[in-house]
Amino acid sequence: MRRWNGWGDDTITYPLPASAARFLEQLIGPGTPPQDVRLEEAAAAVPPSRLPVHPLVLDSPIERIFHARGQSLPDWITLRCGDIHPLPDGVAYPSTESEVRELIGYAAAVGAGLIPYGGGTSVVGHINPLPGDAPVLTVDMSRLSGLKRFDDISHLATFGAGITGPDLEAQLRARGFTLGHFPQSFELSTLGGWIATRSSGQQSLGYGRIEKLFAGGKLESPAGSLELPAFPASAAGPDLREVVLGSEGRLGILTEATVRVTPLPESENFHAVFFPGFEQGLSAARQIVQARLPLSMLRLSTPTETETTLALAGHEYLIGLLERLLALRGVKDNKCMLLLGFAGRDAVIKTSRKEALNIADNCGGIRAGRTLGSRWHKNRFRTPYLRNTLWEMGYAIDTLETATGWDNIPAMIEAIESALRSALENEQVHVFTHLSHLYPYGSSLYTTYLFRLASNPDRRKVASETLRRWQTLKMAASQAIVAQGGTISHQHGIGTDHLPYLPAEKGKLGMAALAGLCKQFDPIGIMNPGKLV
Amino acid sequence: MRRWNGWGDDTITYPLPASAARFLEQLIGPGTPPQDVRLEEAAAAVPPSRLPVHPLVLDSPIERIFHARGQSLPDWITLRCGDIHPLPDGVAYPSTESEVRELIGYAAAVGAGLIPYGGGTSVVGHINPLPGDAPVLTVDMSRLSGLKRFDDISHLATFGAGITGPDLEAQLRARGFTLGHFPQSFELSTLGGWIATRSSGQQSLGYGRIEKLFAGGKLESPAGSLELPAFPASAAGPDLREVVLGSEGRLGILTEATVRVTPLPESENFHAVFFPGFEQGLSAARQIVQARLPLSMLRLSTPTETETTLALAGHEYLIGLLERLLALRGVKDNKCMLLLGFAGRDAVIKTSRKEALNIADNCGGIRAGRTLGSRWHKNRFRTPYLRNTLWEMGYAIDTLETATGWDNIPAMIEAIESALRSALENEQVHVFTHLSHLYPYGSSLYTTYLFRLASNPDRRKVASETLRRWQTLKMAASQAIVAQGGTISHQHGIGTDHLPYLPAEKGKLGMAALAGLCKQFDPIGIMNPGKLV
Repeated sequence: MRRWNGWGDDTITYPLPASAARFLEQLIGPGTPPQDVRLEEAAAAVPPSRLPVHPLVLDSPIERIFHARGQSLPDWITLRCGDIHPLPDGVAYPSTESEVRELIGYAAAVGAGLIPYGGGTSVVGHINPLPGDAPVLTVDMSRLSGLKRFDDISHLATFGAGITGPDLEAQLRARGFTLGHFPQSFELSTLGGWIATRSSGQQSLGYGRIEKLFAGGKLESPAGSLELPAFPASAAGPDLREVVLGSEGRLGILTEATVRVTPLPESENFHAVFFPGFEQGLSAARQIVQARLPLSMLRLSTPTETETTLALAGHEYLIGLLERLLALRGVKDNKCMLLLGFAGRDAVIKTSRKEALNIADNCGGIRAGRTLGSRWHKNRFRTPYLRNTLWEMGYAIDTLETATGWDNIPAMIEAIESALRSALENEQVHVFTHLSHLYPYGSSLYTTYLFRLASNPDRRKVASETLRRWQTLKMAASQAIVAQGGTISHQHGIGTDHLPYLPAEKGKLGMAALAGLCKQFDPIGIMNPGKLV
Repeated sequence: MRRWNGWGDDTITYPLPASAARFLEQLIGPGTPPQDVRLEEAAAAVPPSRLPVHPLVLDSPIERIFHARGQSLPDWITLRCGDIHPLPDGVAYPSTESEVRELIGYAAAVGAGLIPYGGGTSVVGHINPLPGDAPVLTVDMSRLSGLKRFDDISHLATFGAGITGPDLEAQLRARGFTLGHFPQSFELSTLGGWIATRSSGQQSLGYGRIEKLFAGGKLESPAGSLELPAFPASAAGPDLREVVLGSEGRLGILTEATVRVTPLPESENFHAVFFPGFEQGLSAARQIVQARLPLSMLRLSTPTETETTLALAGHEYLIGLLERLLALRGVKDNKCMLLLGFAGRDAVIKTSRKEALNIADNCGGIRAGRTLGSRWHKNRFRTPYLRNTLWEMGYAIDTLETATGWDNIPAMIEAIESALRSALENEQVHVFTHLSHLYPYGSSLYTTYLFRLASNPDRRKVASETLRRWQTLKMAASQAIVAQGGTISHQHGIGTDHLPYLPAEKGKLGMAALAGLCKQFDPIGIMNPGKLV
């Protein structure tokens, strides 16, 4: 069963090897395991619903708690300290478009806010009810999740927007296809959520971001229905798909989406290369992506991330062996790891692998074969489970991300990491970064930071002090990103957490244009109020 | 010097071989060369300007005539019959952003409409003044055309939006780069125009459409300035670049644009393959593009286009030889030609060429080497000059285009071509089509149609009857495109000519959203009124 206050299925755990625990303790000090609230206690504290009765609306405390928060660190703090408010007043599971329209009509009539809910995996507050007088109805899209059309000539598939990653890929794989969209949240997140938040999958280099994969669909909004035809391309005025992409539930509810699919690759493999320092790795990564080679993935870790990844992996003996072998070839303390992914036709893979690895060689890279790459690929959706383990050990882990031009990458990493490292007065923060989505003209940066939960016998005080630490850290990093000229989000979206920083990149007129669009689709202001703009 | 009433530089002609003239005469009958008006006559008929004096505004009849029309067939009819109204009342050539803002302020103050003007190559009426009481000021962007920044680390270049294709490529080539954007209008059209109309270049398969190449820029609008940062990608809400792309001057004037550039390819080559019939060619083209091979171009002509291209090329002896050789291998009357372009690293080209040609072989293709491909590449910007020659022989030539899914391609070609062939009661129409922008999930279709100018001693009657023929043809084809589910434009935009068909694909709510955006940027409605929405 899905964890109500953490990541993923509760039968899956990610135990940390003892060596990894020692490594962490040395870096940021010993953790104090917190005393989380139990679901029954939290449910007992849920206030009555403010929504009038409707046959589609459920209002049990459990339903409401399960839809109360996403997966951000503040969301976890709220859920685990048990002081969960505000909550949605009700949850509906529409199973047809007409039920979605009915729910919009109901919300408009009773003056309720409507929150579209996909997998509930937002890490920036997209699906959280905000304080206010109006009741809130969360619309869980999980029942609108079937395969509606499959066109094996045009390579297009139409799904109900509530379909999760695994269900979508299972439907496609049965037909010999893949969408190729694998965000870290893949196991739980949904097609509609990917579109509404401009999600990007780990193999976006090969398959494209969701912007490229989303061909068209249907949106139900308070002002009516919007149908986006699935043309391969069009010059017929501004592209309304791009207005729906990233709209974060503010314009309406996406009920179905047509996506562009790809035949399953003939083969797929991942290689690791180690560089003696970050500068060499960065140069290789940039040269490879600027050579426009048809790779499916590039991922470059800084020396600190490389060290941390190897330490947390356990396998002390094997990692030690690897490190000794690398050291023999001059790759030591500042080593950084580049993962290269290839997928597609064998002949094309062979050529692009040779070209890419040659570039890496010329930058001083040492090839480390496929083992680490295959491990990464196998475990890529497991990493979020580590959050559960760390929390229970008394550690908080959070990530943030941006994207910027290649010329700005070193300065941006320095700005973000130093802002985080120095943000807390009496607590150590362990910070590391990788480049995970590379473009010929720049890259995303994905920074992970670890710090200790507050230690206090009073659960509420643990919550408030840990939240204060997170707020301090998040603000420092966000301000650094804006000051250094990056986008406030490359893949997580805006929600509430990034909202203060959006005007810096959209400008006054741009913000007015976004607000105007919301007004056009939702004149009465009931769609996911308080998010995005 | 640039032709005032036709295509291109007046020192360049495209004479038609005698055999080609006979071919045309057999198809649609002998043409009657029309008596075009001279520039001096047209200038003498220009009414006084309705604009108050401003130091930046020129109002000579010649300036106004040169900016009066684009390159659509109705534009030619208007210019060549001499009955040119309405005209812009003035033309300004701003050379700074602040002059652009000053002109917007001036237009707002005097209640004038403002038409941004790039290369004047629109074929759908984008830059034409429309009848009305308000005076019209055309803003020629040719002086805002410098290279402002070049970042050889991030592969980004920032230009004044008025720069033409050749000037832009010259600047980039001097630095070892290319934009790779080569629409047929390349010699005259501008970066700003490409963005405002969602242009697509002939090698979009390799380099991407302008949507992909346009990283950011600056727009001056009546409501203020909009700056679009050049992030490599962003999840920070809806993408405002995509609102500016295709905005056709309705939101404001793009003053500068940052584009994503590519190192010049190690090599570039074009191959031709002939298929015994269209079905085989279509299957090969689709399989090649769906194999995601890194090609720069695919272009598939129908049998009629293949025949027409070979006939108009002249070189009777060589073409005859080619046809005999193909016939020996079973490729005869219904043959169709596929051009394949490759650009990039030698090793990647070698692999992708082998893979692509193998697919073509398996579909019954006969390889015809590089000669025809190289000829196409060399002459690709020359084709529009043929319009001048044909007009002077008494023939009108026009093109239209759409895009649709692969499953719909054969039916779409049939719908468009049969609508055109049967539209005129007593005149033959010669129609042919190619696929020029191929995607894994569909293709653009580009249809050319030829018919005779009306024959009459009275120039005005030639104009009105030829216009009537064009209107009949254009309406028949546009209705066919809409009925068959295609976009009304893959690369030309909306302007005035496609305006009636836009609601069919945007829907009521979508049209309201577009109108709302225009209102947001241009509350007083002075930006290119009457176009797009």
